Amino acid sequence: MRLISLVERDGYPSDPNHIFLTAGASAGVSLLLSMLIQDSNSGVLIPIPQYPLYTATLAQFNGAPTPYYLDERHGWSTSVDAVETALKDAVTRNVKPKALVVINPGNPTGALLDEATQEQLVKLCEVHSLVLLADEVYQDNLHKRTTHSFTSFKKVVSKLRSNVPLVSFHSTSKGVTGECGRRGGYFECTNLSDDILGLIYKMVSVGLCPPLSGQIGVDSMVRPPRKGDPSYGLWKAETDSIHAALASRTKVMAKRLNQLPGVTCVDSPGALYLYPQITLSTKAQAAARAQGKEPDTFYALRLLDRTGICVVPGSGFGQEEGTWHYRVTCLCPGVEDYVTALETFHGEFQAEFGS
Amino acid sequence: MRLISLVERDGYPSDPNHIFLTAGASAGVSLLLSMLIQDSNSGVLIPIPQYPLYTATLAQFNGAPTPYYLDERHGWSTSVDAVETALKDAVTRNVKPKALVVINPGNPTGALLDEATQEQLVKLCEVHSLVLLADEVYQDNLHKRTTHSFTSFKKVVSKLRSNVPLVSFHSTSKGVTGECGRRGGYFECTNLSDDILGLIYKMVSVGLCPPLSGQIGVDSMVRPPRKGDPSYGLWKAETDSIHAALASRTKVMAKRLNQLPGVTCVDSPGALYLYPQITLSTKAQAAARAQGKEPDTFYALRLLDRTGICVVPGSGFGQEEGTWHYRVTCLCPGVEDYVTALETFHGEFQAEFGS
Repeated sequence: MRLISLVERDGYPSDPNHIFLTAGASAGVSLLLSMLIQDSNSGVLIPIPQYPLYTATLAQFNGAPTPYYLDERHGWSTSVDAVETALKDAVTRNVKPKALVVINPGNPTGALLDEATQEQLVKLCEVHSLVLLADEVYQDNLHKRTTHSFTSFKKVVSKLRSNVPLVSFHSTSKGVTGECGRRGGYFECTNLSDDILGLIYKMVSVGLCPPLSGQIGVDSMVRPPRKGDPSYGLWKAETDSIHAALASRTKVMAKRLNQLPGVTCVDSPGALYLYPQITLSTKAQAAARAQGKEPDTFYALRLLDRTGICVVPGSGFGQEEGTWHYRVTCLCPGVEDYVTALETFHGEFQAEFGS
Repeated sequence: MRLISLVERDGYPSDPNHIFLTAGASAGVSLLLSMLIQDSNSGVLIPIPQYPLYTATLAQFNGAPTPYYLDERHGWSTSVDAVETALKDAVTRNVKPKALVVINPGNPTGALLDEATQEQLVKLCEVHSLVLLADEVYQDNLHKRTTHSFTSFKKVVSKLRSNVPLVSFHSTSKGVTGECGRRGGYFECTNLSDDILGLIYKMVSVGLCPPLSGQIGVDSMVRPPRKGDPSYGLWKAETDSIHAALASRTKVMAKRLNQLPGVTCVDSPGALYLYPQITLSTKAQAAARAQGKEPDTFYALRLLDRTGICVVPGSGFGQEEGTWHYRVTCLCPGVEDYVTALETFHGEFQAEFGS
């Protein structure tokens, strides 16, 4: 692929030999984690809450998940202190941290890192000899005015002239390019030695190739139509309308969720989700436990049964002890209707179990 | 998917809940091997020569390849004695064999197992508590009259009422359904406990789904047009012509390869390949070593440089010490021309390095 858009995005050169096509970002993450984990003491720092690909893949390869907590009270921000705390905790468990996973924009939180925090995280990786795994699949999903825009870790690392080994993951199935089932993605390596790149090349080759349709999707994503191209007008109109719809749905949902008793919701600028916190009464918790379920799973299953709306309970993503959340997507048209259904359900749930 | 064709093939029922769709057979093999390998003493019996997916994946997950040798003098047949020898050898290396990989029809050999041997192999798995991994991706690639037809391990295990855990892999990219880049496949589990099936379900879910185009390919493969369907005539004509072309190309190649001095070639009935043995002189071996290459790699690279024909050296698949092979596909039209080029090259090579 021509790497026009990566160079344009970051202002630094990209080497096609340092980029590997994958069957979606998941396949790349899985490959890198399998290479980083040497034994069950190999730790990987992961944000909590986090897209459970990471915990699941760490379980598969018998690595040690080393959680650091995102700060819900400050818009799900990432603090270097929280990562330092996790590193100290790892030492007490005899875990040797190998890598730091950062999801930016966040999944499920939708939070967007600022460049100052990114610089601190890169420096932390330098100090602790960590590989930085940057999950940047939502980089094109920003649908709210923010004080800052998306900055890639490639740009931050390049600007700092840092030697931190960085792998950045991207996917066609977010943004506006393709559906999840197309399975297209790539990862770009920065500061990896030729030996390691050679090993990655060999391992990627074992899987033959990502699906053709995914490869075509990646090509479309990194080389979108440009002003003056015949398809530019249509592409721009469709892209803008998708982003506008996401922005308006997210805004409506966040506002109305925040008006519900016992619900607070960070109105995040990115990704495709909201991750509201719900207060669940002692009675609701007891009813859940009686069924052998986590309280948020109990809530989510009831919501599904009563309204047909499917949300993912926070216990799948991780959350601070004693708090409960769910992840809801902002993708569906007819948002007014399903928020109304959600409100009605929540009222009935509280009437039954107390607030 | 409706499982008409699996049931028709074997005469035994198939349970859709025991079948998992994959991005080609490779993804399924990788998943199963990752689950079977507990530590570096976990052994997996693999045929030599073998499609290097197995050695590469065992290296990735730090398992112990436990090779058993196929018998070239008897048409690359599989003998239970050879597997028993490998099992004894494993004990001396402190390796605990977990699984037996059988590739039927063989890759790169194209050999087809007979049912009596399959029964012996199943019984061997019973005795040694091995999981049987049956790579049956070439089951529809039989293009020569044989004394017996393809029999699935599912059928053999079912017929014997054996309790051997069996996983059979299939793919859309062999046969006549689709190209490799579509990435479609599935594996069917027999005699796996609900616990293990639950675990596989969870692990498969982490990867979200195989590519949509691959899923469509699997559907086309397991439900081909039937007599009376509007597309049956065209499908039958195309399928038959592909098989006829493969048969005729394989026949021409095997015959002419066997006429070359210093070349012997098993004329196998299946897969898409031939795997001729080549005698390489001491001078050729020395010239290869001087370049830091295996002798068969040296031969294959020269062939590529001189003729543009790409074959895969046997050292990639494994071979008995001191023998040299290459794998050549029988897929290309114009076989007469490229066999002629191959003959000319071989003559020149022998003129330069001796026979």
